[in-house]
Amino acid sequence: MIRKLIEKIQKTDAPIVVGLDPMLSYIPEHIRKQAFEEFGETPAGAAEAVWQYNKAIVDAVYDLIPAVKPQIAMYEQFGVPGMTVFQKTVDYCKEKGLVVIGDVKRGDIGSTSAAYAAAHLGRVQIGSRSFAAFDEDFATVNPYLGTDGVKPFVDVCREEKKGIFVLVKTSNPSSGEFQDRLIDGKPLYEHVAEKVVKWGADCMEGDYSLVGAVVGATYPEEGMRLRKMMPNAYILVPGYGAQGGKGADLVHFFNKDGLGAIVNSSRGIIAAYRQEAYSQFGEAHFADASRQAVLTMREDIRQALASKRMKIF
Amino acid sequence: MIRKLIEKIQKTDAPIVVGLDPMLSYIPEHIRKQAFEEFGETPAGAAEAVWQYNKAIVDAVYDLIPAVKPQIAMYEQFGVPGMTVFQKTVDYCKEKGLVVIGDVKRGDIGSTSAAYAAAHLGRVQIGSRSFAAFDEDFATVNPYLGTDGVKPFVDVCREEKKGIFVLVKTSNPSSGEFQDRLIDGKPLYEHVAEKVVKWGADCMEGDYSLVGAVVGATYPEEGMRLRKMMPNAYILVPGYGAQGGKGADLVHFFNKDGLGAIVNSSRGIIAAYRQEAYSQFGEAHFADASRQAVLTMREDIRQALASKRMKIF
Repeated sequence: MIRKLIEKIQKTDAPIVVGLDPMLSYIPEHIRKQAFEEFGETPAGAAEAVWQYNKAIVDAVYDLIPAVKPQIAMYEQFGVPGMTVFQKTVDYCKEKGLVVIGDVKRGDIGSTSAAYAAAHLGRVQIGSRSFAAFDEDFATVNPYLGTDGVKPFVDVCREEKKGIFVLVKTSNPSSGEFQDRLIDGKPLYEHVAEKVVKWGADCMEGDYSLVGAVVGATYPEEGMRLRKMMPNAYILVPGYGAQGGKGADLVHFFNKDGLGAIVNSSRGIIAAYRQEAYSQFGEAHFADASRQAVLTMREDIRQALASKRMKIF
Repeated sequence: MIRKLIEKIQKTDAPIVVGLDPMLSYIPEHIRKQAFEEFGETPAGAAEAVWQYNKAIVDAVYDLIPAVKPQIAMYEQFGVPGMTVFQKTVDYCKEKGLVVIGDVKRGDIGSTSAAYAAAHLGRVQIGSRSFAAFDEDFATVNPYLGTDGVKPFVDVCREEKKGIFVLVKTSNPSSGEFQDRLIDGKPLYEHVAEKVVKWGADCMEGDYSLVGAVVGATYPEEGMRLRKMMPNAYILVPGYGAQGGKGADLVHFFNKDGLGAIVNSSRGIIAAYRQEAYSQFGEAHFADASRQAVLTMREDIRQALASKRMKIF
């Protein structure tokens, strides 16, 4: 799957993932109104609004980008109707040819991680048949429980040719509280990075492993060191845009081949119409604003990479 | 909610939580057969089998125990029908008067953790109305992202009088890989424990905080130290039984008041009928075997506490 992701990045010339993290407050009034009229001010109504919003944005940007990253928490908060729309969103994006990164940050003891891996990347055996539940292409994984919590995901990646991104250094302000603490002279996140290399060593597709890493755009210096420590790990980079990460910060996350990183923007794209810079589109044309925001982000990253004489491919 | 949990523990004289972690392979043939006849060998069929299995076990043990802990991964692997049965199970257990600990191990950056907290413990605003999605009483939380990933859960606990258990030292074999590493002379899990104390300081109900901790029964020495470090945190103790933890190991997790810990057993209770010790019940009477296993576990813990001259209350 990492090979497919790279091919899509090369084809679109855009190492960009759009985070489908729909808050109700982002969704234009006319979509909410119609959904509430049909299903009431209920979780089913909220889920319908999310679905219509997602669909319009995906329709407007799918030809420009390689991948999307739905954040499952935003769907889970609406209960079962929310999870139904999470699944519909995953399915629809795959139909549109997009690579889907399920931002689920799961992780547990071995047997439980195996169930999560089956839920999001693999298949579950039911009697004589097997089924895929949510069937994303990639999932994000939390490493706090150590190897036996991550291994079941790696096993499924190898079997199903899927991929994972392990949380190494997260984008949030307090990520340093534990992740930056020094252990034998090195921050915890570097110890996690060493494990990422190990976990990913025997599931390579070409130059890159099915086991990647999450490193926040908000920590460019850490990103530079981690890039070197994990040469074969694709880095999923959240924190661009709304969280404060800038194009110039991103170059360090890429390898010399112009590959090795994919940058996420969520709010900055899906709620672009609410920003001053895209206000000319108006709420009615929110999806066009999202398309323009993708084009602007792509240009920002291209220029940053060009200034460092890096080629996307 | 921690007060309610303590009252239930005192009333049942059993600091026990039954882990509702249904693997299809645990479910007796006659239940699976009937569910598959009705819904086919499909996720809906699997979910129905899980529901009937859970219901029978809850009916057989609810008067003996204060709480249950459904492990959401086991439901998530069956997709939307699985999540529907997760919700039905939570609702049913609450109807039966049980405290429900959602073993979800969620944790993310602030705004996303807020959505998870709303999904599992709080309410979500939809237009002019508000709804609770899964509405467990407690949830387990992963601390890797630091304070801003945990704080939204704590805020919801305070508002809704719910509770969380933060992963401190997990029960699995490789938990030490990161959690045991020394930072300023102390293992990482002790640094997390210090934060648990801090996070929980301003949401006390009587002697205990709404912010508790997860510490595995498989690490009794660590449990002893952590018990002293977090005097007001209730400790959720997984790893008893099938994972190797024994009654005698558990005494260190309790405070002198006989409170402060609740011990989970999953497979050991719900799949008791498959063990040699309960084979006289047979597959048809699997729920009776579960009841007997609860009684045996209760006795094991009572004796262990008595031998240390601890009273449950």
